[in-house]
Amino acid sequence: MTIRVKQACIIGVGLLGASMGLALKQRGIAAEIIGVGRSRESLDTALQRGAIDHIASDIKEATAATDLICIAAPAGSVTSILDVVMTTTTVHAVIFDVASVKKHICNHARTHYQAPRRFVGCHPMAGGENFGPAHASPDLYADSVCLVEQDDTIDPDAKKLVSALWHAIGARVVDIDPALHDGILAATSHAPHVAAAVLALIASDSGATRDFIGNGFRDTTRIAASRPELWRDICMENRDALCYSLGEMRKQIEQVESLLKNGNTAALEQFFEAAAAGRRRIMES
Amino acid sequence: MTIRVKQACIIGVGLLGASMGLALKQRGIAAEIIGVGRSRESLDTALQRGAIDHIASDIKEATAATDLICIAAPAGSVTSILDVVMTTTTVHAVIFDVASVKKHICNHARTHYQAPRRFVGCHPMAGGENFGPAHASPDLYADSVCLVEQDDTIDPDAKKLVSALWHAIGARVVDIDPALHDGILAATSHAPHVAAAVLALIASDSGATRDFIGNGFRDTTRIAASRPELWRDICMENRDALCYSLGEMRKQIEQVESLLKNGNTAALEQFFEAAAAGRRRIMES
Repeated sequence: MTIRVKQACIIGVGLLGASMGLALKQRGIAAEIIGVGRSRESLDTALQRGAIDHIASDIKEATAATDLICIAAPAGSVTSILDVVMTTTTVHAVIFDVASVKKHICNHARTHYQAPRRFVGCHPMAGGENFGPAHASPDLYADSVCLVEQDDTIDPDAKKLVSALWHAIGARVVDIDPALHDGILAATSHAPHVAAAVLALIASDSGATRDFIGNGFRDTTRIAASRPELWRDICMENRDALCYSLGEMRKQIEQVESLLKNGNTAALEQFFEAAAAGRRRIMES
Repeated sequence: MTIRVKQACIIGVGLLGASMGLALKQRGIAAEIIGVGRSRESLDTALQRGAIDHIASDIKEATAATDLICIAAPAGSVTSILDVVMTTTTVHAVIFDVASVKKHICNHARTHYQAPRRFVGCHPMAGGENFGPAHASPDLYADSVCLVEQDDTIDPDAKKLVSALWHAIGARVVDIDPALHDGILAATSHAPHVAAAVLALIASDSGATRDFIGNGFRDTTRIAASRPELWRDICMENRDALCYSLGEMRKQIEQVESLLKNGNTAALEQFFEAAAAGRRRIMES
């Protein structure tokens, strides 16, 4: 399936949005790209980098005549942007987002828009510590996985187009139920972010200096250096699943404490063995 | 201070012990090195690599005529090895260990041996996921930090020699009270190991596959792949301080859960900000 659109619109031109723009241009998927967003500075950078061709002053102007809309705004503002887009865009436009939390956004779309809807929830597993359009790359999504919402209220053609688009820019599409997505991501991404932050705080409280730091601390707390406002939004959007994972973490930690207090050496070794095996199972799946 | 000894002995020729042997030989610090340990295979590898010159059949034979003794055995067996060494070695021999837990070992030395004692507790901040003498390097300790026990029952000459030795093989010596050492290391190293293991287990339980894994998970759980028996020993040896850190972790996690449940967005952002600042403070100290 070859995708060619006359005009695409990107709402939010941070790392993900601007990289999408570069990828769409480089692969000849969109002839023209309109950018819109809150930060004039980011829009100017995205324009300079060639990620967008024009800057629109608001979402209405940006989406009025466009065929493809990528919402790359923070997770917390996707639903309100989507509500505006649904009233301003043409009925043929295909819309997708790139937020790393899906249940709330997809439920909103399922509940508020008539089926078959042309919005498809997406979560590309790409990005890292760098942010902003200055770090954008047309290859950000190459060799990555994009988790795509699976739901029977989605227009099959819209779903097909969005999947083909991810494929065209190098990502492998994995279909997933949004609630299941959020449960798994709470465990594999959001709880690790909270844990990294907690570990950084505990170490800081202990009076540690750089002299006491090894690779273990560096690795486990690296993501504690991520942007606070981004992770505030993601965690808040996925609070139910995240609270479940955090509760499980506390239970497991408490169990380790009781093994330590009881001197249960064999069970402690089994705990570390099971963890190493669990990680191996995931990494080799 | 130039250090030259006729004969050194290394007890336990894993990564740390064999690297010590290679470093002592390369810098011309020890003319001859005797190795002793539980694993014949490791001893043979250490011999082939040139980390030791001879294999002794037991500690008594190995330490009878030696001037410098490095105990590089697992943390859990240092005190019992030390008890043997103290009865077999000459009164002039200087002894040090490389275990990553110090209070229990140093307390044992302080309590059981007459002052001034010639054993000095050491914890080189070196090593990583690799283990065994096959991965040994004469430069393992170069540009690293070695935390060295500070206590008034240590013979000042022994302390001076051990510090000069670390300096000679490239490490920067930082003196530290053993109890303070264990409290800080519980927070910066041992709790992160438990957290990484817990995160791996939770992700495994969530049904995650490789498709749901990003760099955040990879980094935070990397050390969950470490050797279970090594971390069992370290955690058990430092159980009091570790239980304190794990209790603090649980409290902090519970606080995050309550911020999430109450929708306290501002406080959640502050939490992430404080964590990022805490990590920065440590890394830039």
